[in-house]
Amino acid sequence: MPNWSDVDTPAVLIDLEKVSANLLRVQGYADANGLTLRPHIKTHKLHRFANLQVEFGACGITCQKVGEAESMAAGGIQDILITYNLVGEAKLERLAKLHESIRVSVVTDNETVAQGYANKFQNPKHRLRVLVECDTGAGRCGVQTPEEALKLARFIAEQPGLHFLGLMTYPPRNRVAEVDQWLEDARKLLTENHLAPEVISSGGTPNYYQAAEVKAVTEHRPGTYIYCDRMMASYGFGTLDDCALTVLATVVSRPTENRAVVDTGSKSLGSDRCDAPGMGHLVEYPDAIITTLNEEHGTIDLSACVNKPAIGEKVRIIPNHVCLVSNLFDQVNLIRQDQVEATVPVNARGMVS
Amino acid sequence: MPNWSDVDTPAVLIDLEKVSANLLRVQGYADANGLTLRPHIKTHKLHRFANLQVEFGACGITCQKVGEAESMAAGGIQDILITYNLVGEAKLERLAKLHESIRVSVVTDNETVAQGYANKFQNPKHRLRVLVECDTGAGRCGVQTPEEALKLARFIAEQPGLHFLGLMTYPPRNRVAEVDQWLEDARKLLTENHLAPEVISSGGTPNYYQAAEVKAVTEHRPGTYIYCDRMMASYGFGTLDDCALTVLATVVSRPTENRAVVDTGSKSLGSDRCDAPGMGHLVEYPDAIITTLNEEHGTIDLSACVNKPAIGEKVRIIPNHVCLVSNLFDQVNLIRQDQVEATVPVNARGMVS
Repeated sequence: MPNWSDVDTPAVLIDLEKVSANLLRVQGYADANGLTLRPHIKTHKLHRFANLQVEFGACGITCQKVGEAESMAAGGIQDILITYNLVGEAKLERLAKLHESIRVSVVTDNETVAQGYANKFQNPKHRLRVLVECDTGAGRCGVQTPEEALKLARFIAEQPGLHFLGLMTYPPRNRVAEVDQWLEDARKLLTENHLAPEVISSGGTPNYYQAAEVKAVTEHRPGTYIYCDRMMASYGFGTLDDCALTVLATVVSRPTENRAVVDTGSKSLGSDRCDAPGMGHLVEYPDAIITTLNEEHGTIDLSACVNKPAIGEKVRIIPNHVCLVSNLFDQVNLIRQDQVEATVPVNARGMVS
Repeated sequence: MPNWSDVDTPAVLIDLEKVSANLLRVQGYADANGLTLRPHIKTHKLHRFANLQVEFGACGITCQKVGEAESMAAGGIQDILITYNLVGEAKLERLAKLHESIRVSVVTDNETVAQGYANKFQNPKHRLRVLVECDTGAGRCGVQTPEEALKLARFIAEQPGLHFLGLMTYPPRNRVAEVDQWLEDARKLLTENHLAPEVISSGGTPNYYQAAEVKAVTEHRPGTYIYCDRMMASYGFGTLDDCALTVLATVVSRPTENRAVVDTGSKSLGSDRCDAPGMGHLVEYPDAIITTLNEEHGTIDLSACVNKPAIGEKVRIIPNHVCLVSNLFDQVNLIRQDQVEATVPVNARGMVS
């Protein structure tokens, strides 16, 4: 087996031992707190890791796109929640095919989308499970109040081919009490109206270890935890040492004493920023700062580095936002103790719809 | 033929008439000013448009990655400049194969990389063309002074299997006089030393129409001009109406009076910012602002809009940086007068190395 340092660059390296440790730590918290874990696979997009998550105790997985769900179903996953308002006949037809073969659930935050589900799914003996998405403060999708949640839940429950399963939210960061209040109010209101939610599903990696403090929540959908990244570490979830995915790059230029350029840019690292300075963290040169990412160049300031890399040297970069990276590479290298154990295709890469 | 509004979302739409107009306008300026045009295909990554650029008068194309060049050679392109320091046996072996079948040129800004070329290419009857990359102020790759350029050119010229072709730069924006001085000084110094550059190649779309003011330049390598984008328009190159590529998205949620969410995020639009506010421009709602892109959600502020989109409505988004978008979609839709003329694979998508 080749060493990771033999791999041509840029390339993705994934440390299998760190992946296992990250999965087990998060599953352990869920188990200890009576939470169901339903990991979001947008971060890795790999059949292998989705199956590993289930093997370690997850009840199923979460996807954002029908295409991701189709890929994961083909890879053996039997229980998938698509946390997205699905609009249009093309997607509903694909959803109907999935509904025939696996256990699938979806969400909605409005009657237009719910009516679309109701029109497509009309079999009372095989109802589509639908959760109501709630905006508990993040300001993205979701009904705005528990009263709106009740109204939409009632609408869903009245449709012969739909089953009202519960509530789903992608919560704001660091506002646990607010989310807790919102969901508890909604749970009570729904229960009083004979629509007690079977599932209340929350998400996100940054506040994962506060999940048990949001008492109404029954299920959690973290995604990034499997690899961790610079953004998560800057939020206080995990450390840089927990980061399982790095992008291997080659130093191709040293134009000045304090400047290096590597062969990885926004088309391999993504261009999301985070609270830490620069566009990624160099494992071998922790004091270096990636000041700029062009599409295929990363420009690095070495001013703070005592040792400086030579042209031709390979370096590993922890990305700011790892979920973008999985979507930029056709394949990834799985590493165990510095050896490349396998190079595998990113199964659900590019599943835009 | 379907109308573009029938295409499932998110999807890329490319207006063929705008593409032709953009190509002809830029080719016309090159022709009128005695410049050779060598477009960078990183923006479109399509065989079809590379061939169209050559048909319209380009001398060949520019690529950043060996994989892009391999794809374009397979698509019929005969003359390719790879504007990148190529490091390592894997890439040099692939370069050698290309060198056997088409006219290929490369660059270097250091002796380590030049020595790699010299070791791999040793046939004096079929020498590899090499340009010296010059940092004329952009602060990325490139030798720092004309004297360094001379030293490296001399090194290249001394290698039996290499041919010193000239100079290459990716110039800084809005510093024409500075770039002009740098390249003219280098040209003179090289000429005095019997190493007169045959080619002096500059690049970039933003300052393209000042290319003729940099008198030493013989060749230009614009990329983004084929589609234009919000960043180029904000730089004063082209207008939003020139933008040929849009991302078709569906409004999936209207949680509040002034908020809409579309089914396109950083995994379909990229997350580069530009001088204009927000993360993209909505053609149908020009006063809307895309405030946030998550991976699969675009959150839109409609406060300034008189008319507001309904759930299920499709909207077209001009991306901030169009080059990232071509790399995120497996296929694109070519549109003529609102009809989808063809849906084609993005040939060189994901060519990371």
